[in-house]
Amino acid sequence: MKVTKQRKIRVGVLGATGTVGQRFVEALVEHPWFDLAVLTASSASAGRSYGEACRWQLSADIPSPVVDAVVQPTEPDVDCEIVFSALPGDRAGPVEEAFAAAGYGVFSNASAHRQDPDVPLLIPEVNPDHLGLIRTQRAQRGWTRGFIATNPNCSAAMLTMALAPLHAVFGLKSVLVTTMQGLSGAGYPGVPSLDALDNVIPFIGGEEEKLSSEPRKMLGQLNEGKIDLADFLISAHCNRVPAREGHLETVSVALLRPATPQQAIEAWQTWRPLPQELGLPSAPHPPIVVRPEPDRPQTRVDRQAGRGMAVSVGRVRPCEVADIKFVLLGHNTIRGAAGASVLNAELMVAQGLVGISESASQRISE
Amino acid sequence: MKVTKQRKIRVGVLGATGTVGQRFVEALVEHPWFDLAVLTASSASAGRSYGEACRWQLSADIPSPVVDAVVQPTEPDVDCEIVFSALPGDRAGPVEEAFAAAGYGVFSNASAHRQDPDVPLLIPEVNPDHLGLIRTQRAQRGWTRGFIATNPNCSAAMLTMALAPLHAVFGLKSVLVTTMQGLSGAGYPGVPSLDALDNVIPFIGGEEEKLSSEPRKMLGQLNEGKIDLADFLISAHCNRVPAREGHLETVSVALLRPATPQQAIEAWQTWRPLPQELGLPSAPHPPIVVRPEPDRPQTRVDRQAGRGMAVSVGRVRPCEVADIKFVLLGHNTIRGAAGASVLNAELMVAQGLVGISESASQRISE
Amino acid sequence: MKVTKQRKIRVGVLGATGTVGQRFVEALVEHPWFDLAVLTASSASAGRSYGEACRWQLSADIPSPVVDAVVQPTEPDVDCEIVFSALPGDRAGPVEEAFAAAGYGVFSNASAHRQDPDVPLLIPEVNPDHLGLIRTQRAQRGWTRGFIATNPNCSAAMLTMALAPLHAVFGLKSVLVTTMQGLSGAGYPGVPSLDALDNVIPFIGGEEEKLSSEPRKMLGQLNEGKIDLADFLISAHCNRVPAREGHLETVSVALLRPATPQQAIEAWQTWRPLPQELGLPSAPHPPIVVRPEPDRPQTRVDRQAGRGMAVSVGRVRPCEVADIKFVLLGHNTIRGAAGASVLNAELMVAQGLVGISESASQRISE
Amino acid sequence: MKVTKQRKIRVGVLGATGTVGQRFVEALVEHPWFDLAVLTASSASAGRSYGEACRWQLSADIPSPVVDAVVQPTEPDVDCEIVFSALPGDRAGPVEEAFAAAGYGVFSNASAHRQDPDVPLLIPEVNPDHLGLIRTQRAQRGWTRGFIATNPNCSAAMLTMALAPLHAVFGLKSVLVTTMQGLSGAGYPGVPSLDALDNVIPFIGGEEEKLSSEPRKMLGQLNEGKIDLADFLISAHCNRVPAREGHLETVSVALLRPATPQQAIEAWQTWRPLPQELGLPSAPHPPIVVRPEPDRPQTRVDRQAGRGMAVSVGRVRPCEVADIKFVLLGHNTIRGAAGASVLNAELMVAQGLVGISESASQRISE
Repeated sequence: MKVTKQRKIRVGVLGATGTVGQRFVEALVEHPWFDLAVLTASSASAGRSYGEACRWQLSADIPSPVVDAVVQPTEPDVDCEIVFSALPGDRAGPVEEAFAAAGYGVFSNASAHRQDPDVPLLIPEVNPDHLGLIRTQRAQRGWTRGFIATNPNCSAAMLTMALAPLHAVFGLKSVLVTTMQGLSGAGYPGVPSLDALDNVIPFIGGEEEKLSSEPRKMLGQLNEGKIDLADFLISAHCNRVPAREGHLETVSVALLRPATPQQAIEAWQTWRPLPQELGLPSAPHPPIVVRPEPDRPQTRVDRQAGRGMAVSVGRVRPCEVADIKFVLLGHNTIRGAAGASVLNAELMVAQGLVGISESASQRISE
Repeated sequence: MKVTKQRKIRVGVLGATGTVGQRFVEALVEHPWFDLAVLTASSASAGRSYGEACRWQLSADIPSPVVDAVVQPTEPDVDCEIVFSALPGDRAGPVEEAFAAAGYGVFSNASAHRQDPDVPLLIPEVNPDHLGLIRTQRAQRGWTRGFIATNPNCSAAMLTMALAPLHAVFGLKSVLVTTMQGLSGAGYPGVPSLDALDNVIPFIGGEEEKLSSEPRKMLGQLNEGKIDLADFLISAHCNRVPAREGHLETVSVALLRPATPQQAIEAWQTWRPLPQELGLPSAPHPPIVVRPEPDRPQTRVDRQAGRGMAVSVGRVRPCEVADIKFVLLGHNTIRGAAGASVLNAELMVAQGLVGISESASQRISE
Repeated sequence: MKVTKQRKIRVGVLGATGTVGQRFVEALVEHPWFDLAVLTASSASAGRSYGEACRWQLSADIPSPVVDAVVQPTEPDVDCEIVFSALPGDRAGPVEEAFAAAGYGVFSNASAHRQDPDVPLLIPEVNPDHLGLIRTQRAQRGWTRGFIATNPNCSAAMLTMALAPLHAVFGLKSVLVTTMQGLSGAGYPGVPSLDALDNVIPFIGGEEEKLSSEPRKMLGQLNEGKIDLADFLISAHCNRVPAREGHLETVSVALLRPATPQQAIEAWQTWRPLPQELGLPSAPHPPIVVRPEPDRPQTRVDRQAGRGMAVSVGRVRPCEVADIKFVLLGHNTIRGAAGASVLNAELMVAQGLVGISESASQRISE
Repeated sequence: MKVTKQRKIRVGVLGATGTVGQRFVEALVEHPWFDLAVLTASSASAGRSYGEACRWQLSADIPSPVVDAVVQPTEPDVDCEIVFSALPGDRAGPVEEAFAAAGYGVFSNASAHRQDPDVPLLIPEVNPDHLGLIRTQRAQRGWTRGFIATNPNCSAAMLTMALAPLHAVFGLKSVLVTTMQGLSGAGYPGVPSLDALDNVIPFIGGEEEKLSSEPRKMLGQLNEGKIDLADFLISAHCNRVPAREGHLETVSVALLRPATPQQAIEAWQTWRPLPQELGLPSAPHPPIVVRPEPDRPQTRVDRQAGRGMAVSVGRVRPCEVADIKFVLLGHNTIRGAAGASVLNAELMVAQGLVGISESASQRISE
């Protein structure tokens, strides 16, 4: 797949200075299909250069292509086709609607619209067909060109990746999950160091609710313009641990059709989702890395697998209470946030669902 | 309860220089009933002062009463009645037997004999009646005065404390537990800092097996000199996290007779175990601290509850998959190791089961 | 020295809910001479119980004597004689003056008045005679009973403790110091965990200036109601490190009269300051702990020396550039903050300088 | 500069499984001039695949080109021209000599031969002319083709980089340095986590001695086949801090000819060393990054500057005791170890000093 430089799609990042916003910038600054043309932030930062407005966390220096970019206010009059939203959950709702109404394609990492019945909650490997909701969305909301597509909560993203092949092959009955979530999930300044160091905090506001509900929507069926939730139970215990990035999860799963650990591993290893078939730029190969070691995946060691887009799974074994149990790990601000949104956009581009003056399918040639 | 100084019982610590050994010394150096008279270590350390042989971790200075004590080899000819064993699991087995055969009361933190059918695996709050096994033990092994009593694995200790009142009141069907265990549980030098910092390791050798089996023995019934295991299932996921001390556990429990979170809290708060009734010196009041805050217990904040002997419980709520779920926390090297053993010894002293020239019941006066 | 309960002096803590405020509460809640009668905080917290208003950091539970105390606004009409100020530096100045003008003895941990020429900057071991400034202060400000006495910046407190005996015996020419300061020094929420973990930050706002100037005032001479600064140079490099509490400092000192490391050690070990002679309740014995080990003092291991009030010194050796070099450590929120202020108050009580209806010397009997 | 693939020089790594050995593998596995053909380790690992023998720390997976490579014993009969030595200091001495005697070019990170009068202690940016010692070395030791070239101690490497332009322009009189060194400097398993977490250890065995002597050799003059040490004093305080990688150093410098901070900055920014002029593959551009922010460089944020090969300098300001003071940071296992050795080899290749059948100058074409 080849996209010539002059045909790159102009994109923007809403809320570009925060922890997730920076991950969007990192993912887009040299993207083969997208031209990062717009960075927005709160009015306090608007008008300043990105270099001044942003306390860059990811490396010694802000990437040079954006260091002098002028930060714009978060208003739906920016010069681009697609916006990626790293806005905080409590502000994202109406702002994202305004952008969609103004004709932008909105790819949101915020939770505001995830549970709207007409908004796809999307993992390209898991439920690409849920993009069908966008037709309903536009019809119901009176939008012609704009739309909102969301990616899930970070912990739910990696869990759903691991569950999808099991759900397809064996059927899920119930899932009991305990998360050990890295500090970057709380944003910046986020968790005070006096609370983080030498401690575990067994609570993250709203997290367990998202983790109990989002996978059921993503693994649900699209029927006549709406999603029937998948019929299984999820119970979550969410914890903050003093690791910088990476969410580790222990999972016990009861299945409709019994499976051995080896059969589960085969389900993961033979999984061939659409983004990998399409060769989307951000799609990891393989999407799920099955670790054979007795003590892996580990947060620090494995979080960069597949450039942060793969989910690592290990310690697959029978569960004394459910059927099988295992450990999974993913990068919370890449697969769990910015990278997820970018992959969503790549999927829609590849399927000709995003574009303005010419069809996106023309834009992309093999 | 009052024990005059001249009647203190002479005790020793086997393997006194390690992480758990130091906790034994800390617990015993000013104990009201025990006189810490013997410290043993490997032959490399024997003959040196404790101050020289031990890399003390717990405070700036080794307690002055033991700094000049001469470390003795771990041989069953030391001058005391009771020994506390902090020996490593792979060496503890025959050494503890030799001490018991020589007439010592052995209180062991090692796993070697925990599953022996004639050895009590004891938590004084939970199964004090299991001391009845000592009669069987002596009969079968031909020991007249010596014996072995063990305390459980650290993670199992706190879990079983929290489960005991639920088991008594509602009956347990199954338990799904994920642990987040502090670094001191691996001893010294233990976990390399390059593995610990900014990481979670989802594996601890042998831990899940212990956690799946020990609670069932402790919550079992003593019948005609043997224990019938309690009839419920436990599945464990054990993880090492970068906290210094304290093991946090998330627990989902299915019950025989349904209970609300509030009923579970009442079961914990109305629990009146024997050590608290007897006023044993190391018994915490209350044995289980129920935290009302939404984000507690936390490892660093709550591990010292009850001077490290209490178990803190919080976030009690309905479980979508089982019946109720909650978080618990305990201090792994105090309630989970040295403090547990010392409390075992206090129980036997209070019940007149330990003593030499005169009955222990005489030794202890109200 | 004995103070009967009915004669305890009523004291208050201004800004009682913060990191240093909590250390004041901890130090005062069971103090033999003081009755902790007043807790103040910002108007947002006033009227609530201390248990509700304060996010207690120091142990599982807020000390029971204060948990239900009603927090008062920080106004100079509280019912006590002495107030300890844990107010932030930018607000402390006028508030402390208002309290002093209203007749309260103000013991301040804030930097606002430290460099006022008529305000003593006090370490009871180092410059108790500087209390003579209070006469000047009252005369100049028209205060009859109230006053302000300050304790130094945390890093300066421990450095000055270690320098004082060297200054007295050998004379100081220059001091080059690098600090490695724990996170609690920044208060709560303070340093974000994303900045703290796996990092060193080589900058702490205002710290190097304080560290360069405060020791020279404390080691200066009181002459006719004013302080002549000590005549030596200090250069400081201040760094934030991911340790919870404790400030470690490496120090190279040039002396007027050359000394060997052994002579410096003797100067520390033979130092007999006034608080220790008077037996003040918070005075550590010894005030300076000289560690003989090659790798001590260490932050975590030694910060509690002397219940956080001692300064530990080690690795005393010749310096290739100056004369001698060494490492020192102190507890930043105890000796470096709340404990320092409490010791100041104890000194003034013991010297009969604080009291209302009867002389403080009567109040205190041997 | 272009090197065709068939002309790559075969190289090996001695001690390839340790912390520094892994950094060598990382630096060499896709190197444009070198073909990583040999990996050696202790006899316990020899014969196993590198994937089995090595506990890889740097990413999720061992680089695929070496995962199946068979580890060889560390004997001077391996099939390559150059060996990089990551051997531990106590074993490196005779082994490296044996390799050099057998004709290999030995680039060593070990300290064993650094102070040999006929062995260059090399930083290509600082003292490339010291390679002239190799002629002396061969003559004295009777080696015809082999040789030993060493890189400095990690802390000395970055300090000397920063000092070199100051020495050249202003002349050095004395240097007082305090280091805050990351954990990886101690190798694996290295520092136990119980010693590292929430702590600073003010001692690293042998480090202060190296830091006081090595810069004087590197900044010395080559005269008639031997080095005259540079004539200035260094005093070092070395500390271990709980950061993963990166050594931060605070430095106070007295100069022969006074300089302002701005003049020092200009000396760094106008420095044009040989490796950058030659375009050596591992040479960073610029070699010294001057940070303008008030709180930089920081360990985590800046250690990867120049792919770990640059030294970052900041907070340049007048020193109250010396002339100027500043902070510097470098990556200890890249610029301070493996990367340094690889750059040494690149320099010798570029200068035609390494090669076998044809001259290296032929081998390398612009």
